[in-house]
Amino acid sequence: MTAAAAGKDSPSSSTVRGTPLLKDELDIVIPTIRNLDFLEMWRPFFQPYHLIVVQDGDPSKTIRVPEGFDYELYNRNDIKRILGPKAACISFKDSACRCFGYMVSKKKYIYTIDDDCFVAKDPSGKEINALEQHISNLLTPSTPYFFNTLYDPYREGTDFVRGYPFSLREGTPTVVSHGLWLNIPDYDAATQLVKPRERNTRYVDAVLTIPRGTLFPMCGMNLAFDRELIGSAMYFGLMGDGQPIGRYDDMWAGWCIKVICDHLRLGVKTGLPYIWHSKASNPFVNLKKEYKGIFWQEELIPFFQTVVLPKDCTTVQKCYIELSKQVREKLGKIDPYFTKLADAMVTWIEAWDELNPTGTAAQMVNGSSNGK
Amino acid sequence: MTAAAAGKDSPSSSTVRGTPLLKDELDIVIPTIRNLDFLEMWRPFFQPYHLIVVQDGDPSKTIRVPEGFDYELYNRNDIKRILGPKAACISFKDSACRCFGYMVSKKKYIYTIDDDCFVAKDPSGKEINALEQHISNLLTPSTPYFFNTLYDPYREGTDFVRGYPFSLREGTPTVVSHGLWLNIPDYDAATQLVKPRERNTRYVDAVLTIPRGTLFPMCGMNLAFDRELIGSAMYFGLMGDGQPIGRYDDMWAGWCIKVICDHLRLGVKTGLPYIWHSKASNPFVNLKKEYKGIFWQEELIPFFQTVVLPKDCTTVQKCYIELSKQVREKLGKIDPYFTKLADAMVTWIEAWDELNPTGTAAQMVNGSSNGK
Repeated sequence: MTAAAAGKDSPSSSTVRGTPLLKDELDIVIPTIRNLDFLEMWRPFFQPYHLIVVQDGDPSKTIRVPEGFDYELYNRNDIKRILGPKAACISFKDSACRCFGYMVSKKKYIYTIDDDCFVAKDPSGKEINALEQHISNLLTPSTPYFFNTLYDPYREGTDFVRGYPFSLREGTPTVVSHGLWLNIPDYDAATQLVKPRERNTRYVDAVLTIPRGTLFPMCGMNLAFDRELIGSAMYFGLMGDGQPIGRYDDMWAGWCIKVICDHLRLGVKTGLPYIWHSKASNPFVNLKKEYKGIFWQEELIPFFQTVVLPKDCTTVQKCYIELSKQVREKLGKIDPYFTKLADAMVTWIEAWDELNPTGTAAQMVNGSSNGK
Repeated sequence: MTAAAAGKDSPSSSTVRGTPLLKDELDIVIPTIRNLDFLEMWRPFFQPYHLIVVQDGDPSKTIRVPEGFDYELYNRNDIKRILGPKAACISFKDSACRCFGYMVSKKKYIYTIDDDCFVAKDPSGKEINALEQHISNLLTPSTPYFFNTLYDPYREGTDFVRGYPFSLREGTPTVVSHGLWLNIPDYDAATQLVKPRERNTRYVDAVLTIPRGTLFPMCGMNLAFDRELIGSAMYFGLMGDGQPIGRYDDMWAGWCIKVICDHLRLGVKTGLPYIWHSKASNPFVNLKKEYKGIFWQEELIPFFQTVVLPKDCTTVQKCYIELSKQVREKLGKIDPYFTKLADAMVTWIEAWDELNPTGTAAQMVNGSSNGK
């Protein structure tokens, strides 16, 4: 089978001018503590889509959303009202709260972006439509079982190279598209301290599949995924207020989803699109959030590298509950935090299933919403 | 440890203007059946290095090497004289014969290039010094145990991203640098037939490590490696005259070296540098060479994906002999060709050890050579 036959043409054929891609099938989730002026720059690209704003911190504060955007907004009070005691699984005072937005969405796809991320330009000076690239990544298959040296074989102008097994050319469904960042790279506190002036100026014109069995550091800044196929594992854990660590929310989610994707034969891509990350967070504050994670991670990675999910884990939810058991059993020894996290993973799935009953009409939940 | 501490600065510090990198430690191996006029274009980059030309086909033909290059040339008669009956393991009428050059070299590093490959230009129009990039790839570590989303972390201007385990930032020695091709992509016959006009015009400005446990299609057109650390596994198999397949020589070598690198904790990089591949080979001829491989490959890949080398295989030679046993046992059933190939793998190691005795001075072998 040639790449063309395996769906290569679908993204370009669905890029019909004037009809935004997946307009009614994708929500944009934005966690924030401030007015969303950054949306002005994204207006040409985001305005056709529905936004889910998750307001972090003080719920009495008003978040201003620029005119003309179709959005719903949830603050801490909304989260408590909707989830009741289960709201405990949603982080507070941490952008990990964004995963509440994944849960209340009713769409097939999610794109999530931080509010300090702006439209980047490609080397020709053209503004990058990040969402369009993410959609293209998600709508073409992944190739996790064998590496293609010319990168994503489903891209226009390229294909599988000589020596690529023909039986693997159909690929596997892509459920995560991990985008990158120009300007401020996503460094940890230690690297920020050592290299305060480093900027990412290199535009790497490639998308590639993270191979099966390989973990990667998934950043939540510029991330799209198939909510139907992997959403219930996209839990950003317990971070921020009252928790011993921060800045490992997206990493945690990334390791969980990767082992589940490997088990369920789903694909994860990374690379294009770039956004422009405008502002480096404070490395001293970050170090305080991260320092326990730096130690713990040395045990988390071997744990995730050797996780085996039983064959009867045939759905994402089953995989995630099984993973929570293994987290409790194997990571609980490191620190009581991981027992609490294992509990929260179970609560998350319970809340997800409550808000997303299978086989029935989508359940209504209401935040403060604005009809466009 | 920061990337800088892990050897990031070594390639740039060794790029002293006027002193070619690794001048006395690297041989360039070229398999050919024609005059080497293509070297004119490479003169600024290759002239300081020693060339090993392996003449394929009719040994009575004279191959012209442009003036001023320091080279030794081996034709089929030389190979027979040097290896005696063991010459049977070196392919005839196939560019797989190049691996004879790896065997007779006495240098630490090898760069091998096809004679239809020219100097490519980067997007700024600058001629790419492919050899310099390969050397930089080989002199900086690989990161096969965890994926870095900003690609090679040892490159100037980049590093390990947030969430990358600190214990893995030293990396592992890089032993293979697989470079790519602009213009004619390295497609199989089927893809050539389906897409006769496809050209690779995309310059992807990245180098990355092929993760542990992942196989890739290694192309021998633009390839560098550490001969001391992996050379004895860089056998290009039995192809061409008298053999049932062709065009799987570099693929075979790539699968063998990858499982051995994974076992011995050595690294393989792919990406930059690009060369300009000038001429598409005939797809009809290629189909004839490849068609058995297309079937066989479907069993070879699962074989290589599940090979386990025992712990006592602590050297490349031991790994390779063990691999030959498993090839004989598991692939011999597919076709008698694989039994013959397993024999040839053993012969290759015997010949390698004869020409490269450990612990003694390098043994002299003579082709027709020219002192510069």
